[in-house]
Amino acid sequence: MITTEKHAEVRELLDAERAAGRRVAMVGTSGGTHSGHISLVEEAKKECDVVAVFWNGALKLEWASGGVQAYNRDLAHDQALFEAAGVDVFYIPLRHDLYQRPSNTFMAMPGMLRHLTGMPEGEHMELLVTMVATLLNIAGPCLTFFGEKDWQQLVMFQRMAEDLHLPSRVIGCPTRREPDGVAISSRNTKLSPEQRAAAPALYAALTAAADAIAAGERDARAAAEVALARLRPVADPDYIVAVEAATLRPLDTLDPAADGGPSDGEVRLLASVRFGTTPLVDNIGVTVPTA
Amino acid sequence: MITTEKHAEVRELLDAERAAGRRVAMVGTSGGTHSGHISLVEEAKKECDVVAVFWNGALKLEWASGGVQAYNRDLAHDQALFEAAGVDVFYIPLRHDLYQRPSNTFMAMPGMLRHLTGMPEGEHMELLVTMVATLLNIAGPCLTFFGEKDWQQLVMFQRMAEDLHLPSRVIGCPTRREPDGVAISSRNTKLSPEQRAAAPALYAALTAAADAIAAGERDARAAAEVALARLRPVADPDYIVAVEAATLRPLDTLDPAADGGPSDGEVRLLASVRFGTTPLVDNIGVTVPTA
Repeated sequence: MITTEKHAEVRELLDAERAAGRRVAMVGTSGGTHSGHISLVEEAKKECDVVAVFWNGALKLEWASGGVQAYNRDLAHDQALFEAAGVDVFYIPLRHDLYQRPSNTFMAMPGMLRHLTGMPEGEHMELLVTMVATLLNIAGPCLTFFGEKDWQQLVMFQRMAEDLHLPSRVIGCPTRREPDGVAISSRNTKLSPEQRAAAPALYAALTAAADAIAAGERDARAAAEVALARLRPVADPDYIVAVEAATLRPLDTLDPAADGGPSDGEVRLLASVRFGTTPLVDNIGVTVPTA
Repeated sequence: MITTEKHAEVRELLDAERAAGRRVAMVGTSGGTHSGHISLVEEAKKECDVVAVFWNGALKLEWASGGVQAYNRDLAHDQALFEAAGVDVFYIPLRHDLYQRPSNTFMAMPGMLRHLTGMPEGEHMELLVTMVATLLNIAGPCLTFFGEKDWQQLVMFQRMAEDLHLPSRVIGCPTRREPDGVAISSRNTKLSPEQRAAAPALYAALTAAADAIAAGERDARAAAEVALARLRPVADPDYIVAVEAATLRPLDTLDPAADGGPSDGEVRLLASVRFGTTPLVDNIGVTVPTA
């Protein structure tokens, strides 16, 4: 595994791989690496010949001056995990290497931003999209892999790449789960044993709501209530909402034929629920038949 | 010259050229082609092996719903000029080929936008930057050539490419002038014979201001006044301002050592002057010694 902090070296390395006919993958992470991230590398290795990990822990701290959750950024620990997973290039972006003067160009996604649910303030999301666009420009034409667990950011990255005609494609990978259904996340380690024992209720509640929709429920609030009823006894829900999967537009009706319904029938139920003080997020997709 | 309206075909063509080791140039134009545009092709041919012209007349009309100046868009006429100039690929971007759904990603350049002088409203400039970024993503790694006559848009394009680490570089080309000094522009054809006869005063006035700075003038307003005094008898100045060349920041002092002066000594005098109802823009660079 080649490790570098120089963006010019990464571009050169990956250009050479493409010139030799090899397909390049980029996997981005902000540190706190766990098996969910490693699964992105595994997906990348299925599709591509060369996998580069962009380890953005340092850059994220440098960019967002305050207000952003602190992550566990054990660089050496993360590096060892990615090397063991067969990563070829490990790049640590640093602000002083990327910018001789402060950047003055930012992505704005006004339509989508309006629809974000329970996310950090919009400015932060647009900075994140700008950062991903910038790193994709350095990576060059590639496939890049993000987890479906953070559905809203995945959709924003996909839409940005599509809108700007980036030569790269953003691939969403299924959420990795513990055997009891809990989505793998660095936050899980913050749960007490009792909270961890209760945590499977989140995915179970989402599954119950999805089942209700499959059984014919077309009212978005009623479907969310199915999940909420199961969760309230054990957790403190921030939100459970149904959105149009590809646009994040909040839905009242889940009927694709109805005014304001999901145009292609693809619905995503997004949830954030606190176990004690720890918010866990998760989501599930439901396809509502269009005919 | 290969002509196409399909972005996927352009990308494929130019990727193949690069794969064969040839250097690619992109020249963008919004129609109304004149010898200034052809000079960009000539510059491109000096640096690159393959020149693609992106003819954005149709796209610009489609994007900006109203409020944008109508250009003369004689496609066949422009095509013939570019073919005669030795262009290899002629691409006509069209919205329905580029976007299956309306684009929702836009560039914001807040710092620079604040400094724009006499330009159409900011939203239009940011749309233009977004369009250039998108077209550069389709072109792939290349050199792209823009005239210095439209200094503010050139600097915004350069800054965007630098900030986002596009694999392409934006090259500024010297303004082409008629023998009497008038910058070549499609607007010149709108001047009456009397107005055309007076038009050389614009560049002469800018040159006089630049000479005054070279002779020691360090007050920005006084330098502009040198130009204004020469222009007022024959035209109706909208503005003449001195800005820091690379950032567009308006200057009070031209002394690089003074607080708020041009940090690298590079000053640009920007002017817009109406001859009758026709606004002509022009600009000139001055290097103020830093020691």
